Amino acid sequence: MNLLIVGVGLIGGSFSLSLKGKKNLHFASFDQNRESADKAQELGIVEKTFSDITNGVEWADVVVLAIPVKAIKTMLPEVLDLLKPDQFVVDFGSTKASICKSVNEHPKRAQYIAAHPIAGTEHSGPAAAFAALYQGKNLILCDTEKSDSMKLETFESLAKEAGFYITKMDADEHDRHLAYISHLSHITSYALSNTVLKKEEDGEVILDLAGSGFESTVRLAKSSPSMWSSIFMENKEMVLKGIGAYKRELEKLEKLIEAEDERAINKYLEEGRSIRKILS
Amino acid sequence: MNLLIVGVGLIGGSFSLSLKGKKNLHFASFDQNRESADKAQELGIVEKTFSDITNGVEWADVVVLAIPVKAIKTMLPEVLDLLKPDQFVVDFGSTKASICKSVNEHPKRAQYIAAHPIAGTEHSGPAAAFAALYQGKNLILCDTEKSDSMKLETFESLAKEAGFYITKMDADEHDRHLAYISHLSHITSYALSNTVLKKEEDGEVILDLAGSGFESTVRLAKSSPSMWSSIFMENKEMVLKGIGAYKRELEKLEKLIEAEDERAINKYLEEGRSIRKILS
Repeated sequence: MNLLIVGVGLIGGSFSLSLKGKKNLHFASFDQNRESADKAQELGIVEKTFSDITNGVEWADVVVLAIPVKAIKTMLPEVLDLLKPDQFVVDFGSTKASICKSVNEHPKRAQYIAAHPIAGTEHSGPAAAFAALYQGKNLILCDTEKSDSMKLETFESLAKEAGFYITKMDADEHDRHLAYISHLSHITSYALSNTVLKKEEDGEVILDLAGSGFESTVRLAKSSPSMWSSIFMENKEMVLKGIGAYKRELEKLEKLIEAEDERAINKYLEEGRSIRKILS
Repeated sequence: MNLLIVGVGLIGGSFSLSLKGKKNLHFASFDQNRESADKAQELGIVEKTFSDITNGVEWADVVVLAIPVKAIKTMLPEVLDLLKPDQFVVDFGSTKASICKSVNEHPKRAQYIAAHPIAGTEHSGPAAAFAALYQGKNLILCDTEKSDSMKLETFESLAKEAGFYITKMDADEHDRHLAYISHLSHITSYALSNTVLKKEEDGEVILDLAGSGFESTVRLAKSSPSMWSSIFMENKEMVLKGIGAYKRELEKLEKLIEAEDERAINKYLEEGRSIRKILS
């Protein structure tokens, strides 16, 4: 089976490495970043590099789009247009509703599978890819009733070989959950970083006073701005709802501190602390 | 030299362990929690346990208060009252202004040293104490001009033996910095945890969708509610200013997302990301 990895960075490169040497699989890349494409071949992540997407798709049985959400929305309909009946395309974008919507009316919709791997690191590019990234991680598949069931089965078995366990939900539900659990964490980190950087112009002071707590809370602010601005825009409605709910929680605590209501502050913190029962 | 550790948990216990076997030092504890006191003796953190503070202080050359801020404010004037001229007392509380203020007019003020170790873990109690906790960590000393210089010198040399490096600032400045760099991180974590827990009643969903990012951002919400409600109350004014500044930052990002101003969102995230230059 031939797999064309479009975007051979951390996510796409790790998918290839996690399956390398298993079954009768062959990997090629198409990457508009020539440097990434060369690096991926040099590192043995792919055997072959296409500089033309049409040739790449023609060679492939499966096309995997591991590029930013905005780029997926442009490329997905183009790739679908090129597919012969036995081929299919999968995307690994971090939001799902707007991507799914963009091909809902496409005549080859059944040849598309919408996926989101819940895995990653703060690093990027082919050199950051590693074979174990997806071991025991969750791959969310969305709107699977719209995908061809045989192609879905083929892809699920590949994903399990790569280390994933699989969950399914609809695309809107996915974006709603992720707005709260993932996107909001990034927003609160960026806002905290900007607050502290503006207050403390002397980096030395931050370094001297920051325990591991500050470091952990602000870690996500180190993430890629272009990736995250794209996610915030694509999932705008849900993200704004999440910010609204978060502001109400923050203001609740603010008012309790203003009122010096120690008992109610304790209760509020105890409720927040119950996240321990979920995250070990 | 005899050191009486009042409150022999993570902080007090680790101070004792970090100095164990060095020089001619002896450690005893006074802890109102009988179980902690017994455990500390059993673990060899102290050689001796006092059940009466007066006897403990009489035995000691140095008294170390490693208890919550509120309890320090009650106990510190009582311990000062008991001190003979060659003895001194140190506190390890996480806020400094209100503690310092409470003994500013005390006739034995020079026998008190205000300290805050920038170190800790999410665990507590004597069993969480370990000898290396303070290796390479910052010990902030506040309002040192009000402490006897010979006693200060003695304590600084003990602190360095324990692994600390020392910085000095005044108590108000300390509380202002910590409000932004430490206390605010805890507030944003607790608020995020409560937001997500209210939205996602099914813990299984959170667990399936939470990448390491959410876990890191919400980690501080696992901290002790009684310790943190006490800190928020003691440093109320600065903490409220910090929340105010943070809300303004959050709302700035919220408005940019509403306006779909991708360029300005990118700029905002780039600014936040510059925390990388400070925290490696």
